[in-house]
Amino acid sequence: MDAAQEAQKREAFRQAVVNTLERRLFYIPSFKIYRGVAGLYDYGPPGCAVKANVLAFWRQHFVREESMLEIDCPCVTPEIVLKASGHVEKFTDLMVKDEKTGTCYRADHLLKDYCKDKLEKDPNLSAEKAAELKHVLAMLDDFSPEELGAKIKGYGITAPDTKNTLSDPYPFNLMFQTSIGPSGLSSGYMRPETAQGIFVNFKDLYYFNGNKLPFAAAQIGQAFRNEISPRQGLLRVREFTLAEIEHFVDPEDKSHPKFSEVSKLEFLMFPREDQVSGQQARKIQIGEAVSQGIVNNETLGYFIGRVYLFLTQLGIDKDRLRFRQHLANEMAHYAADCWDAEIECSYGWIECVGIADRSAYDLRAHTDKSGVPLVAHEKFSEPIEVEKLVITPVKKELGLAFKGNQKKVVEALEAMGEKEAMELKATLEAEGEAKFRICTLDKEVIIKKDMLSISKRKKKEHQRLFTPSVIEPSFGIGRIIYCLYEHLFYTRASKDGDEQLNVFRFPPLVAPIKCTVFPLVQNQQYEEVAKRIAKSLTTVGISHKIDITGTSIGKRYARTDELGVPFAITVDSAPSVTLRERDSRQQVRVNVDEVASVVKELTDGVSKWPDILLRYPTHSSRPALLGFLVEYSTSLVAIPQNDLITPPLR
Amino acid sequence: MDAAQEAQKREAFRQAVVNTLERRLFYIPSFKIYRGVAGLYDYGPPGCAVKANVLAFWRQHFVREESMLEIDCPCVTPEIVLKASGHVEKFTDLMVKDEKTGTCYRADHLLKDYCKDKLEKDPNLSAEKAAELKHVLAMLDDFSPEELGAKIKGYGITAPDTKNTLSDPYPFNLMFQTSIGPSGLSSGYMRPETAQGIFVNFKDLYYFNGNKLPFAAAQIGQAFRNEISPRQGLLRVREFTLAEIEHFVDPEDKSHPKFSEVSKLEFLMFPREDQVSGQQARKIQIGEAVSQGIVNNETLGYFIGRVYLFLTQLGIDKDRLRFRQHLANEMAHYAADCWDAEIECSYGWIECVGIADRSAYDLRAHTDKSGVPLVAHEKFSEPIEVEKLVITPVKKELGLAFKGNQKKVVEALEAMGEKEAMELKATLEAEGEAKFRICTLDKEVIIKKDMLSISKRKKKEHQRLFTPSVIEPSFGIGRIIYCLYEHLFYTRASKDGDEQLNVFRFPPLVAPIKCTVFPLVQNQQYEEVAKRIAKSLTTVGISHKIDITGTSIGKRYARTDELGVPFAITVDSAPSVTLRERDSRQQVRVNVDEVASVVKELTDGVSKWPDILLRYPTHSSRPALLGFLVEYSTSLVAIPQNDLITPPLR
Repeated sequence: MDAAQEAQKREAFRQAVVNTLERRLFYIPSFKIYRGVAGLYDYGPPGCAVKANVLAFWRQHFVREESMLEIDCPCVTPEIVLKASGHVEKFTDLMVKDEKTGTCYRADHLLKDYCKDKLEKDPNLSAEKAAELKHVLAMLDDFSPEELGAKIKGYGITAPDTKNTLSDPYPFNLMFQTSIGPSGLSSGYMRPETAQGIFVNFKDLYYFNGNKLPFAAAQIGQAFRNEISPRQGLLRVREFTLAEIEHFVDPEDKSHPKFSEVSKLEFLMFPREDQVSGQQARKIQIGEAVSQGIVNNETLGYFIGRVYLFLTQLGIDKDRLRFRQHLANEMAHYAADCWDAEIECSYGWIECVGIADRSAYDLRAHTDKSGVPLVAHEKFSEPIEVEKLVITPVKKELGLAFKGNQKKVVEALEAMGEKEAMELKATLEAEGEAKFRICTLDKEVIIKKDMLSISKRKKKEHQRLFTPSVIEPSFGIGRIIYCLYEHLFYTRASKDGDEQLNVFRFPPLVAPIKCTVFPLVQNQQYEEVAKRIAKSLTTVGISHKIDITGTSIGKRYARTDELGVPFAITVDSAPSVTLRERDSRQQVRVNVDEVASVVKELTDGVSKWPDILLRYPTHSSRPALLGFLVEYSTSLVAIPQNDLITPPLR
Repeated sequence: MDAAQEAQKREAFRQAVVNTLERRLFYIPSFKIYRGVAGLYDYGPPGCAVKANVLAFWRQHFVREESMLEIDCPCVTPEIVLKASGHVEKFTDLMVKDEKTGTCYRADHLLKDYCKDKLEKDPNLSAEKAAELKHVLAMLDDFSPEELGAKIKGYGITAPDTKNTLSDPYPFNLMFQTSIGPSGLSSGYMRPETAQGIFVNFKDLYYFNGNKLPFAAAQIGQAFRNEISPRQGLLRVREFTLAEIEHFVDPEDKSHPKFSEVSKLEFLMFPREDQVSGQQARKIQIGEAVSQGIVNNETLGYFIGRVYLFLTQLGIDKDRLRFRQHLANEMAHYAADCWDAEIECSYGWIECVGIADRSAYDLRAHTDKSGVPLVAHEKFSEPIEVEKLVITPVKKELGLAFKGNQKKVVEALEAMGEKEAMELKATLEAEGEAKFRICTLDKEVIIKKDMLSISKRKKKEHQRLFTPSVIEPSFGIGRIIYCLYEHLFYTRASKDGDEQLNVFRFPPLVAPIKCTVFPLVQNQQYEEVAKRIAKSLTTVGISHKIDITGTSIGKRYARTDELGVPFAITVDSAPSVTLRERDSRQQVRVNVDEVASVVKELTDGVSKWPDILLRYPTHSSRPALLGFLVEYSTSLVAIPQNDLITPPLR
């Protein structure tokens, strides 16, 4: 298959998934009756249930397992917070405008599309030109506005819709701006991430944790990005749910007590060096990755392992999941290391979780801006004697010499580091005076011996004060869910071969409904048994649905397979009923009074389907009601498709 | 106690609650290190857990119990949607500005404060003047901007902070405005309620429900109101979590199949007539209220009953909860009936849940604006013959007579109701012509006999098309939680009488943590047993916390009482441990291996504390370790305070 056919196949697969998702209301383009808004989607009932399940599992797997401190902050955020974090200045994409219509485009997207298109479709492309275009693609994130503009002009790229010329690229801030309060004077934004709400609360959370490190705080909530031109459907949206963890740790000790619990896990990793040298992602044990220094530290490695377990337990295909390390040019200057969990879907490899060691950057930024020290302390078991540099300016002499500039001179003297100060001391002692540069005055002055004293004094310290490092796993919940949909979707022929039926192979953990209850035919006796079963399912906490429509049982199965319901109970005769597993379509007969607890075992992962197959008789007898035989028989024959059986959980 | 003392006592109580809430991080003023933003609060770890518990119970009690369709829509909402709903035009408060400083105030609040202050503190107030001020207070919501301005000027009310004169009142829209996309041309708002997201999806949801009525959709999410000057702490905030239900029902049949399940419930109701005639709220059976026509219909009554159960099961005091019917001037013109669940707290009676029959208003508004019919149909079992009015304008004649105005004349003729049309027909037949008023032209024209035909034709109809009515229970989650805090807070003396200790009497359903585990002293053996118990609590799904600090057991109990943890397990000797109930402070001895399942029984509501007291020996023996006797004994004596025991759940 060539690249074009491959692309066509991917596109067809995506259409099949997306059509099913939209038809069954997993999601709905928001405000559809008003022709919608690009990049905004609703979760319909099954999608909303899937999302609730994913978030509940996230809470269990991360928050409860590690006793994290979960908090919940508002979306509306005052400007000062996002100035400190750098978002007001730097959270931008480069935009170009159609010079006639004013339509806006992301500059890098236009250049990317141009290069890809040329490379894929131009048969006359020279090897030299191809290499150039590939280089442009690799450099895309590094271009300045000027460089990007030059490329766009150079290649003659015009507006895709009109072929009009384009403006020069300029930065567009991706935050939704608003105004807080009635005066119009207080600017605010809808938060672009939930993390800042945790950072500004560090002091209180540290206190809440008994002034002890390490600890993690977590937050689930909405985040907002006013994308220039959203594409890729559910993957690039303007409002989305983030689940973020900020794990605060002593920068001098990033070991993790539970690292041994994940160290033997092996999965696809794509270290920086392998990317640069053109290799593929390869399987590495996370323990090895840390000990070889591929991953910066144990805590980062621990979270990479935990993220792997989280995603695969949800149902993500482990062969289409990789952890890619950020290249030097992708990573913020302050970050110690950063890995993205990327999931392959029809759009390519998509970043779904970012796991970054952001060092002390965020806490320092908010300390500087707010004046409130966001620091931790370590009490020494006994005081430690340290030598401290003491610089004492003699203000009277300095005042006489520098008058109005005195303050700046004093500040510059006090700001000296140890090395500089000891050199100045030596010069003053040897020569009585020394030249000294005052940056804030942009000139050199003469400092005399009597203007300051420099000494070292021994001092007992009882504790160490420091800014913690933060390791941040950040989950794009909507992206994970979309990739799950693609990984768990398949089609199979109906029994009569007339049509292709859609199935979502959700594990019970994720499935929007765990079980359906069908009276085989519409009669009072069957319906009462169905209601009894439904009640016992409620008692054991299994979400379920009764379908008492007169539709054929085959059609009802197909309908719930499409919603990814893993188990169906069909009431056909007493005292036993039929229990069917979605993917194998195998059926067993279970007693009415027992069936709810069997489904509970299955959905809790206590038992697996093969266990149930061994314990209960396979359903094969013809149903009593001959009138319904034709429809019913379409789902009687159990075709073992073991590779499709819901993978065991946990 | 006079009114002033009463107010002082309320204020002191509130301060005690709020101090505890802030100190234990139930909530945190948002962005505190930047001096915060009025009306924005974070939920800290225990508050976040309480909120999650309240929402989980809401989902169980409403969504699952009634098989509601839960959906999840974005907060960012395009202007057209909120124009249709009326929010762009009408979602305003009247504001006045300090004419010198520009500080903004809510006009009605200033007038209200003035009147209350006069009434409470002016000893020379004449009876006549007092009556006038009381009338003003009663009319507050009804004043036009001009009337409100006249009162403010008339009473000489000035800016509270500066005593400067105030501007005339003008409307300020309470929605946070923003711009969607990069062009700046597409205006949007942060939604002021979640309901609109459900209404615009009616068509899809109706289809999802098999085109059957009634059904309900539900949504939990953030909503935003840019309050002019937020006061009342957690009760009036700029961003909050709403949980809303839209129950769609045939306007001709608002009965509810499950009404009998709630009809015997009796609670405080405050019908419109009782308010007008100056009576107090009184206990009424909801079944009676519906049958007497006090509550408009069964479905509305059913939800009032369910809301009562929801709130009281959370722990709201039933004697401080009332359902107040909206007065005519409070209710939207389209609403059929509206009741607020009001909870009494230190701020007075606070609206926490609104339960309104909004008739067909919202669906009609969106039908009109979008052009997409949001309607339901009822298929008749056999076709029904109906007489339909048929108005056929003769365009040729009308065109000759009215030229450019023809279109408006045709529209007016076609819009006639049956009565008007039949009268016109009679006049035309009798006199050959008739006068006819065209509103859109603001004039009367002469219609002649040959300009139109009016007839009635018999037609077979197979279905009835109609716009469903919607019953909307809407829950302010943050307000409910704040009232819970006040209702469940109390103080009691420590055993030595030295200090007052704070307790939150949360039922297990709500408690942020269900159980603590304390090794009595710091030793390895006790800590290992504690960890074993913690593990078995995890297995049965009970959220818990181990506290292995060396703090005295009395202090540790006090610390967790303040967090509202209902049960504590103290590891003091093997093979049994001490299980303590928070409010009675009674203790029993339970075997190590059994204790997790006992706590599970208690938190699930399967057993109540008195059952456990009967089943297990009371703890009374002195602890083995005499060194800890002094502190420990402070919590040994069990004082039965049965009225304080956690009320049984469900």
